[in-house]
Amino acid sequence: MDSNIVGATECSDRHESASQIYDLALDIGGSLAKLVYFTKDNNHCVDGEGGVSHKAALEMCNGSRSYPVLKGRLNFVKFETSKIVDCLEFIQSKKIHFGNQHQGVPANSSNNDIKATGGGAYKYADLFKERLGISLDKEDEMDSLVAGANFLLKIDHNDLYPYLLVNIGSGVSMIKVEGDGKFQRVSGTSVGGGTFWGLGRLLTKCTSFDELLELSHRGNNRVIDMLVRDIYGGLEYSKIGLTSTAIASSFGKAVSDSKELEEYKPEDIARSLLRMISNNIGQISYLNALRYGLKRIFFGGFFIGGHAYTMDTISVAVNFWSKGEAKAMFLQHEGFLGAMGAFMSSEKHGLKELMVNQAVQQFPNSVCGAVNKIHGLLNGESNDDGSIDCSVYTG
Amino acid sequence: MDSNIVGATECSDRHESASQIYDLALDIGGSLAKLVYFTKDNNHCVDGEGGVSHKAALEMCNGSRSYPVLKGRLNFVKFETSKIVDCLEFIQSKKIHFGNQHQGVPANSSNNDIKATGGGAYKYADLFKERLGISLDKEDEMDSLVAGANFLLKIDHNDLYPYLLVNIGSGVSMIKVEGDGKFQRVSGTSVGGGTFWGLGRLLTKCTSFDELLELSHRGNNRVIDMLVRDIYGGLEYSKIGLTSTAIASSFGKAVSDSKELEEYKPEDIARSLLRMISNNIGQISYLNALRYGLKRIFFGGFFIGGHAYTMDTISVAVNFWSKGEAKAMFLQHEGFLGAMGAFMSSEKHGLKELMVNQAVQQFPNSVCGAVNKIHGLLNGESNDDGSIDCSVYTG
Repeated sequence: MDSNIVGATECSDRHESASQIYDLALDIGGSLAKLVYFTKDNNHCVDGEGGVSHKAALEMCNGSRSYPVLKGRLNFVKFETSKIVDCLEFIQSKKIHFGNQHQGVPANSSNNDIKATGGGAYKYADLFKERLGISLDKEDEMDSLVAGANFLLKIDHNDLYPYLLVNIGSGVSMIKVEGDGKFQRVSGTSVGGGTFWGLGRLLTKCTSFDELLELSHRGNNRVIDMLVRDIYGGLEYSKIGLTSTAIASSFGKAVSDSKELEEYKPEDIARSLLRMISNNIGQISYLNALRYGLKRIFFGGFFIGGHAYTMDTISVAVNFWSKGEAKAMFLQHEGFLGAMGAFMSSEKHGLKELMVNQAVQQFPNSVCGAVNKIHGLLNGESNDDGSIDCSVYTG
Repeated sequence: MDSNIVGATECSDRHESASQIYDLALDIGGSLAKLVYFTKDNNHCVDGEGGVSHKAALEMCNGSRSYPVLKGRLNFVKFETSKIVDCLEFIQSKKIHFGNQHQGVPANSSNNDIKATGGGAYKYADLFKERLGISLDKEDEMDSLVAGANFLLKIDHNDLYPYLLVNIGSGVSMIKVEGDGKFQRVSGTSVGGGTFWGLGRLLTKCTSFDELLELSHRGNNRVIDMLVRDIYGGLEYSKIGLTSTAIASSFGKAVSDSKELEEYKPEDIARSLLRMISNNIGQISYLNALRYGLKRIFFGGFFIGGHAYTMDTISVAVNFWSKGEAKAMFLQHEGFLGAMGAFMSSEKHGLKELMVNQAVQQFPNSVCGAVNKIHGLLNGESNDDGSIDCSVYTG
């Protein structure tokens, strides 16, 4: 493939509706469809005027290597899978410039392939073909999750492996990762983001996942959860280490309360639900990490969504069950692991050379000091719109 | 203590409101208060007339031993903890004959002690004292659960230990049992019977636990659970062993359905809830059994309630996660482990000598043949009212 720095030759605003996508991958799950796509960086439009020259770009990003480089951003967008047509329209509204076409190679059917993963890559294949003339090139879901996580975990690999990857989508997958492409799905649970959102919608009538999460931040789970003190008359059950405020039974107070659903505050219900599901995932994750001797657990998927309270609950659960032995860690752009992995699987670019400044965060646990050490991980910096600056070597 | 066969000297009907209780123990949990009490057996009223003589009773039950024996039944009654007053009235309506009083020992305050366990033994201690003049003699909850389970598991102890005892009350306790009195609470989950009942009440407006369970038997969880095929367009995800009908996300369909709570059938909701919670408990139980190298898991507590579908779901979960390595087993009178253990802790009788024909059942799994061997366990026979015939040696 010839050298080509598209970033220095084109100036469309990536925020315009007609902004051009140079590569695109999809992860269509049960609840959400996630897109990762690359756009060239406008900063490099005018050589020497706030931007960087071809040579400078190479030097900045690549040191001594001489591969051609395409500077720009990785963008992350999601749609509800039930509104997959919105996703189609979004893609249609963008002018997709497949890599080869930039180099004067005539478009052919293989150029219209888009890497896609998740069950929706199968379910909606015909729809993409009919509506956009695009073939979805299916990538295995676990392959993509692991590739995406390994990529986003840009740290010394000696420190990284092995780890447990817990992807909390509609359901939850737990994957033991031992190296690039070396992994095994070891467990999972059906009690995941879809359960939070599905049960939450039925119980609170809120209309979106974000609204439900926001509700949960204002709620008090003790209104509806049965605590140890509710059973023991204000006491703790110290012999087995259960404090008076430990949750004995999620939603257990609804048994003896004579209250109807409408008499509970939606925010209290949302909070109980979030704690129940976060605790449960934290516990099952820890038990699986223990089973395989894994000290670090990376959590990803849309249930996390960067929400501090969710991360805190999971951290506390992992800390509680492991007695401080295991650590919960969280990825940025955690909802896009699968899409990111599918994006990287594209043969149109040498994505092993994709350079990003990206991040893992270990949640600074305020409750019990569970998380007390940053394992030398990079702190990523996203742009305000959530995109990541990056460089793609096209050689 | 003198020999005394009360069973051959008294004839009150144990079903009368004034039937006499010879010993009593309580387990007051977050949702339910469980009573175990002993009544003498009417069959032995008339010596030689359908009953048995003192000598015959000794020979039947005790072989060569010569302890005095009290023949009768263990009875099992439960009340909702929120209606604890009903429990007090029930006890008041019975004439309690404490053991010592039968032998002419003057009543004193220690004779008015009742063995009690569970958090309610603390919470309601004053109420019992005020209303009935009874002191609750508190027994540790885990001690009682294990003692009750070990007692009900009347099989060769060499085959019995070690095992994992999973007691599903409002919350769930998981206890590694290695012998009589030798055990450790190793785990638990707040997603238990109280969650099923509490969430179920809010979602279906049903008024009792039994009604909710009955509803679940008629429901179809696929209406509201997101299956693998719902994500994969009818396909399975064979690479990781997920069939098309596996539940990917409990309640996940409620995310994309535009249906309100009222548009779902209560029985479908109840079924999804039962499967979610049973699966989850089965999975966490298995992971803990694995952790401690335990092949057998005995499930008890009121969530089980002898309900075939609940036992089946738990069995399938244990079989699925363990790939057939671990076995789920179920106790009869599984809701009364704590009360039974508290009952046995009474020093008024030599309860190690309590002889019962009691049972463990391994659920005959119809789905996948998970449970294919009865481990030489006794098949218990309860009376129609759920009571157990037994003999108490009072020497």
